[in-house]
Amino acid sequence: MNNSNLATDAQSARPALPAAKDKLLFTPGPLTTSLSVKQAMLHDAGSWHFEFNALVADVRERLLQLAGVARATGWEVVPLQGSGTFGVEAVFQTCVPAEGKVAVLTNGAYGDRIVQMLKHARIAHAVLRALEDQPVDPDALDQLLAQDKAVTHIAVVHCETTTGIINPIEAIGRVARKHGKIHVVDAMSSFGAIPIDFEACGIDFLISSANKCIEGVPGFAFVFCRRQVLIACEGYARSLSLDLLGQLKGFEKNGQFRYTPPTHALLAFHQALEEIEQEGGVAARGARYRRNHETLMAGMDELGFRALLPAPVQSYIITAFRTPADPQFSFEAFYRQLSDRGFIIYPGKLTQVDTFRIGNIGRLFPSDLEQLVHAIRGTMREMGCAVPVRYSTL
Amino acid sequence: MNNSNLATDAQSARPALPAAKDKLLFTPGPLTTSLSVKQAMLHDAGSWHFEFNALVADVRERLLQLAGVARATGWEVVPLQGSGTFGVEAVFQTCVPAEGKVAVLTNGAYGDRIVQMLKHARIAHAVLRALEDQPVDPDALDQLLAQDKAVTHIAVVHCETTTGIINPIEAIGRVARKHGKIHVVDAMSSFGAIPIDFEACGIDFLISSANKCIEGVPGFAFVFCRRQVLIACEGYARSLSLDLLGQLKGFEKNGQFRYTPPTHALLAFHQALEEIEQEGGVAARGARYRRNHETLMAGMDELGFRALLPAPVQSYIITAFRTPADPQFSFEAFYRQLSDRGFIIYPGKLTQVDTFRIGNIGRLFPSDLEQLVHAIRGTMREMGCAVPVRYSTL
Repeated sequence: MNNSNLATDAQSARPALPAAKDKLLFTPGPLTTSLSVKQAMLHDAGSWHFEFNALVADVRERLLQLAGVARATGWEVVPLQGSGTFGVEAVFQTCVPAEGKVAVLTNGAYGDRIVQMLKHARIAHAVLRALEDQPVDPDALDQLLAQDKAVTHIAVVHCETTTGIINPIEAIGRVARKHGKIHVVDAMSSFGAIPIDFEACGIDFLISSANKCIEGVPGFAFVFCRRQVLIACEGYARSLSLDLLGQLKGFEKNGQFRYTPPTHALLAFHQALEEIEQEGGVAARGARYRRNHETLMAGMDELGFRALLPAPVQSYIITAFRTPADPQFSFEAFYRQLSDRGFIIYPGKLTQVDTFRIGNIGRLFPSDLEQLVHAIRGTMREMGCAVPVRYSTL
Repeated sequence: MNNSNLATDAQSARPALPAAKDKLLFTPGPLTTSLSVKQAMLHDAGSWHFEFNALVADVRERLLQLAGVARATGWEVVPLQGSGTFGVEAVFQTCVPAEGKVAVLTNGAYGDRIVQMLKHARIAHAVLRALEDQPVDPDALDQLLAQDKAVTHIAVVHCETTTGIINPIEAIGRVARKHGKIHVVDAMSSFGAIPIDFEACGIDFLISSANKCIEGVPGFAFVFCRRQVLIACEGYARSLSLDLLGQLKGFEKNGQFRYTPPTHALLAFHQALEEIEQEGGVAARGARYRRNHETLMAGMDELGFRALLPAPVQSYIITAFRTPADPQFSFEAFYRQLSDRGFIIYPGKLTQVDTFRIGNIGRLFPSDLEQLVHAIRGTMREMGCAVPVRYSTL
């Protein structure tokens, strides 16, 4: 019986979080959120209580409206505990029959993660890989589907945050429809900021999460789906926790999550939905992020930084920049010094080219991006790096 | 492109949460938490950032200390996104080989939920069921294991919150050890309040979650395990998100969650760990809950309410009371009127007897239980129910 053996020297290891002002997060999420979103978490709600159930119902209703889809035309949205990855995996764990096969189009780490999910679940799959700086190819999918009749599902990431590239989900959806396949879109970092026409894209399932462009806090994902397509998956689920159909049935039975929801994250998300509506919906939010992105690109261009992607396929969500070839440059020092100045950027995730990443989403405004660029200039100077940036390979 | 089609009539459906004072939660969780725990969520932390990683490392270190186990003797703790159920399922999804078989001892909904998990994952299992008002039976397990050599894992719920009953995990652990089986304990609602001797109980895996007796907010579970037992599960995982070994490797590689953690829930939990230490650890917290429970039982006894369980097997976590047979009594009205008075209780979950439940855990003190009993008396009077309570069947 040793449970109260609490060593006091853990005290010294305790990290101090800044009390006065949080560092700004230029990442793909979790993001900087508004104070009012965070303050919505200063309440404890009963997860079985009717007041909380009403809030969950309202969140689901507003999500459908934000997506521009409706129950009347067969759409549903199912929130699920965990990170966005849990939501993506839930689609495959719930909806692919034992004899199903998934064709995955990938050009980055998040597409590759879907492949990993399928391997874990022992689900048959085919992989169509594009280079990291090029969109995935709908024509290659068309050819694959003409040859491989076993494929039942198509999976693609809309905005691949590995690079910030946008994949052509509408063209892919047309191919999926032509061949009668189920189309699954991971829209984690795009939903809420890039308009998506669910019908034109032939979407059956689309996944996003609370801490992306809606600017809530992390704690759950949500999956839009055609109700009839999900209902048809009865008996397929390989996991109880990740059983999307079970969760939909739970909501339809009594308005509740089957298992304890992150109540505070839901209170925050409700406020975040309020705030995206106040801002003017997806179009206005997307416009702000676009201005953020333009401000960033102008500033980084002045410093001589080169983006990995050509402009036409670059999203205004997150941008990968090539790491300078300057011998004075070290990403770790760069990251730490920017952190000391109150700016948190994001490391690269590529295998082929050294990059670092800067996100424009969250409660950030063009002036924040201006300040970030200013801090980058100062950091480069302090590191003794040349500005404009040196790229020996260019 | 219809994403910004935001109907304004959703405004009228918007539920109002009480601004002045939250209702007190007498439930098995999510619970009433301290204001300081909630205030810790007023920050946005970068999930990749070194400051946040240090906090996660500190949380894991303190959890091991609170459990009275140590890395030096082979223990680890792995937090996982989602509710407690996700953590329990992760153990089976990760750790049972294809040819494995799990013996589940159950006397309530949470034991039965483990059976559901195994069915979903197509894992072979045997079920040893006890009546809901009786502890599960270690002797029955001993007999089963003597006969069924295919069993590899034993699963049991420590405090079954269906009734509040305590199951004999030490005796079960001795049987598991005798037969060389892996012992999995769901200690969701007991860890942090009921001392558990991990070695004496022969525990291999023990699961709890953030929003129980540590008094954090919901968002993640955590799994204690013997590192070597988990490491031996390489290649078994059926789910990527629920892959506990993958998550442990992630922590050991770079100190990070593999997928976006609920950063705010972790900040809150860090504060909650601080507060359980300040209170005096597991023993002191358990003592407060015990005083809460004694206060509740004395008051309910005076009103004539009967608990479902005999005192020796009743925990001080949550108590199931028999529903009065008074024709004036309706649980729905009772629940609503108590809610109007600022007290949220919990419905029953039994199949055999009608009950309702009252929890004593969370940031509650004996005076809160006194006020609850007072509100119950007033509600009974307002409903026109007899006090002392009428039980026609007794």
